[in-house]
Amino acid sequence: MILDKVNFPKDLRSLNIEEMKTLADEMRELIINKVNTIGGHMAPNLGIVEATIAMHYVFDAPKDKIVFDVSHQCYPHKILTGRKEYFFNPDKYLDITGYTAPEESEYDYFKVGHTSTAASLACGLAKARDLKGENENVIAIVGDGSLSGGEALEGFDNAATLNSNIILVLNDNDMSIAENFGGIYQNLKLLRDTKGQAECNLFKAMGLDYMYVDDGNDLEQMIKAFEKVKNIDHPIVLHIRTLKGKGLKLAEENKEAFHWMMPKTIDNWGKNIPCNEDYNSITKDFILNKAKDDKTVVAINAATPGALGWTKEFREKLDKQYVDVGICEEHAIAFSSALAKSGAKPFFCVLSSFVQRTYDQIMQDLCLNNSPIKMLVFWGGLSSADVTHLGCFDIPLISNIPNMVYLAPTNKEEYLAMLEYSYNETKHPVAIRVPNIPLKSTGINDTTDYSILNKFKVVEQGENIALIGLGNFFDLAKSIKEELKSKFNINTTLLNPKFITGIDETLLNDLKQNHKLVITFEDGQLDGGFGEKISRFYGSSNIKTLNFGGKKEFTDRVDINKIYKINHLTKDLIIEDIKNTLNI
Amino acid sequence: MILDKVNFPKDLRSLNIEEMKTLADEMRELIINKVNTIGGHMAPNLGIVEATIAMHYVFDAPKDKIVFDVSHQCYPHKILTGRKEYFFNPDKYLDITGYTAPEESEYDYFKVGHTSTAASLACGLAKARDLKGENENVIAIVGDGSLSGGEALEGFDNAATLNSNIILVLNDNDMSIAENFGGIYQNLKLLRDTKGQAECNLFKAMGLDYMYVDDGNDLEQMIKAFEKVKNIDHPIVLHIRTLKGKGLKLAEENKEAFHWMMPKTIDNWGKNIPCNEDYNSITKDFILNKAKDDKTVVAINAATPGALGWTKEFREKLDKQYVDVGICEEHAIAFSSALAKSGAKPFFCVLSSFVQRTYDQIMQDLCLNNSPIKMLVFWGGLSSADVTHLGCFDIPLISNIPNMVYLAPTNKEEYLAMLEYSYNETKHPVAIRVPNIPLKSTGINDTTDYSILNKFKVVEQGENIALIGLGNFFDLAKSIKEELKSKFNINTTLLNPKFITGIDETLLNDLKQNHKLVITFEDGQLDGGFGEKISRFYGSSNIKTLNFGGKKEFTDRVDINKIYKINHLTKDLIIEDIKNTLNI
Repeated sequence: MILDKVNFPKDLRSLNIEEMKTLADEMRELIINKVNTIGGHMAPNLGIVEATIAMHYVFDAPKDKIVFDVSHQCYPHKILTGRKEYFFNPDKYLDITGYTAPEESEYDYFKVGHTSTAASLACGLAKARDLKGENENVIAIVGDGSLSGGEALEGFDNAATLNSNIILVLNDNDMSIAENFGGIYQNLKLLRDTKGQAECNLFKAMGLDYMYVDDGNDLEQMIKAFEKVKNIDHPIVLHIRTLKGKGLKLAEENKEAFHWMMPKTIDNWGKNIPCNEDYNSITKDFILNKAKDDKTVVAINAATPGALGWTKEFREKLDKQYVDVGICEEHAIAFSSALAKSGAKPFFCVLSSFVQRTYDQIMQDLCLNNSPIKMLVFWGGLSSADVTHLGCFDIPLISNIPNMVYLAPTNKEEYLAMLEYSYNETKHPVAIRVPNIPLKSTGINDTTDYSILNKFKVVEQGENIALIGLGNFFDLAKSIKEELKSKFNINTTLLNPKFITGIDETLLNDLKQNHKLVITFEDGQLDGGFGEKISRFYGSSNIKTLNFGGKKEFTDRVDINKIYKINHLTKDLIIEDIKNTLNI
Repeated sequence: MILDKVNFPKDLRSLNIEEMKTLADEMRELIINKVNTIGGHMAPNLGIVEATIAMHYVFDAPKDKIVFDVSHQCYPHKILTGRKEYFFNPDKYLDITGYTAPEESEYDYFKVGHTSTAASLACGLAKARDLKGENENVIAIVGDGSLSGGEALEGFDNAATLNSNIILVLNDNDMSIAENFGGIYQNLKLLRDTKGQAECNLFKAMGLDYMYVDDGNDLEQMIKAFEKVKNIDHPIVLHIRTLKGKGLKLAEENKEAFHWMMPKTIDNWGKNIPCNEDYNSITKDFILNKAKDDKTVVAINAATPGALGWTKEFREKLDKQYVDVGICEEHAIAFSSALAKSGAKPFFCVLSSFVQRTYDQIMQDLCLNNSPIKMLVFWGGLSSADVTHLGCFDIPLISNIPNMVYLAPTNKEEYLAMLEYSYNETKHPVAIRVPNIPLKSTGINDTTDYSILNKFKVVEQGENIALIGLGNFFDLAKSIKEELKSKFNINTTLLNPKFITGIDETLLNDLKQNHKLVITFEDGQLDGGFGEKISRFYGSSNIKTLNFGGKKEFTDRVDINKIYKINHLTKDLIIEDIKNTLNI
């Protein structure tokens, strides 16, 4: 096996082309086996094997600095930079992350997981190099999908002003996670069709030099290209055409499904796996239903249809009422805001982690204008996710912006009622934190009028202690209620606040009568979150408060039970804290 | 006077070209007089007079929808849409805003004040029109400076996919607020130099149709151009070359100084107005000093050098150690993060309101990577600013992100010590909320070691009540201390927390001994802010808390004293609240 001889980039330099081609095959097999076992990004990594070998053959990393955009295409790079054991040994599969990680290797410069940042980061590395009078190469690897993100375009635009070495590799596989959307992709096609010769060239129009490689999966072409741009004295875009999923027929033919995949997708391909009802399917059904009768309903997402379960069938049914804006959360919010201002009904669906890209637009384009869009936030909550994809920050982000109505349903019926309310709301933007827990149904229609803002629901009236369980954590609050009843015979009050963005002052004031402790539970970061507002409210009273949620920290693939333990979110630890507070 | 006959766009249609030219002169005079009296945006408005007349002559607003980017160039539009009295009558000068405002007129669609949003907003209006089967024109007016912002590029890219009427007017005056920075400006120059004929064309490369007008200040050319694109059935960019400051020689020759100006700038031009020391000058001196001895120090801003007092002289002195990234806060943070990772010392200076553009980058590119950049946040605090430029949200935004160290100095010496600390910090990103109050000096060096994080300073030890005065509001806390002493003979404890991002648990626990009330004061929004964390901390104890700051709301040019009153931030109201809490 060639890989036996290759541990670090320098080892490549003793190989000939044929050996490197064999190496590419071996690396592909490793990637396919690992990803099919534990899940992860398949197609992006298969597409970039040759380019990565060529890059490490030509450049002198880690002196030369390579920044991967999103970094979901860094598996080949990891194999070649001292980490092949994590691809060979199934027991070690999970010991490294799927993204670049400086703590793993000096060949990785940044922890990255959100798109469109590589050009900007590379600009910083290049500028620092110039200021220090050093001379290494700085290389950014950017997928064509990432190019639709504003930060990428800012980065390319700024790179042009550097006046020194920076190599922006555009890895063009003619796909984002799903298809590409946006005018620039016409130009990429034109450039591919003319083998880079077209006069009208996005990159040249941004002031950048440009070079084209027609087959980015051809090792010799890639080595030649990299040798040509190595030590270049000015910014250049190296546009390479690669095949997403290369070497795995299923992936080549089903690029979207194999972009990121669950374990055993290859084994289960074609099998009819029954889809149970879940919050994704409920959302889709609701939107489809409304869209049928109301031509102004628009379903919008930013390049993540798969994560939302938005199949091709769903998208085709919606036709003109479906908009994928590309990786453009900023645009998505402004676009949705204007749609709503014109009387249309935009449903912008977004993952908690990615809503971060559009704070200013939520504030200015949306809330300031009080445009009644409907924003559905998925994957919010504490989790064992990669540190780049945590869902615990959306409450501090969204709920502190004036005019926003942010709702937290606790079951199917509430979710449906809130969707209906959001559809009808004309005065405010409404966001709903879609439950990130298994579907739960009461079987009874929720008839609450959510246009009466900030009205908490008393689920059970008790005394002494009031438990406020927000969204995902309502059931946790309920279980504490049961525990306090059975162990201490305390009949606590149980509240379902439903609103994250405001507090029910009347109700909270009433609680003062016969309660001495009010406890909040939220599935997210406490700092800047929901519970703190309750504590502020009661600060000047005799009521004590306890806020349960996550502390302010980045966690990286930490087991969720460990996270719960650290944050005192287990039943025992919660009871312990209550006992300490009340001296019982 | 021609203007006597013109109140609304329809009135233009009975004028001939010569009359419209006279009208342009009359409008210029109005704008010059008003802006020189009360301050505001001068040069952008003078440049767009003819284009605005032509636009309203050709299009049928408000049916046809016009969206201004930033909208600091909407004065001519306001004059022509029923609001000329606010330019004629000095008593009414302040009765309208300097930005588009739907509450003023049906001709304004959005409240806008941050750049680069118009194309996205126009896309939404156009999509809603198409869904509803209507047929009005949708026009966005975007300055060349705004084009460097990622949201603008996302918007243009998405506009190309609309397949229906949208007219993106690029108002190219070859200036941002200051000079333009970025590779795309080479292409705009090429297009101007070739009168729009160059094959390499940024907009065509984005999939957009394109038309060029060489003299956007020529009424006939502009009318012809608008007539040509009116009712067009696909997206088009209308690139017009205008002269920023047109018609006021001083402004034409000093475009940056006259972009936004203080009252009486014309009258005082050339006079040597002495510059007193302030937090801007201290910042500049510190950066210059460090940069002289350390070639890795870089001063970075995003197209707002003037607001920071960064004169031409200052920028020239810094030379390669000065970077204006254009209107690219997202890029600025990623760029700075990479600079810091490479051992350089980036000082990114940004206004509180504009830091909102880069929440995700602060989270991911910066804090996740723990890059030790130095971010100086100006203009933070409650204010009577326009609703689009409020500075009360930066604490909730910045302080709830893990790893960030956010500091709040209360005087010159603390600020200098914190700057020095930030310069030396290598482990964390450091942000400093530059005081937004008149300069105060103690005359005594601050020798605090700020690398010991979250250590609050006990300014005076007392009992019963502890007052925690953060940053700008430290003096307010101090005045309350004096009041409580003189009126109630209570010796309160006074704390200067200095750190916004963490609390001094040891100290706060110690306070439990002989205090029953802890009061926080912060110059910003309470929701998600500093005080709530103190209330959460004390929630389960016997200590009561009161948090003073701003409530969650958008305020628009509200007198600051009114804001203080509404929020109980006057001495009397604070004392009242304390009395109510303690029943004294």
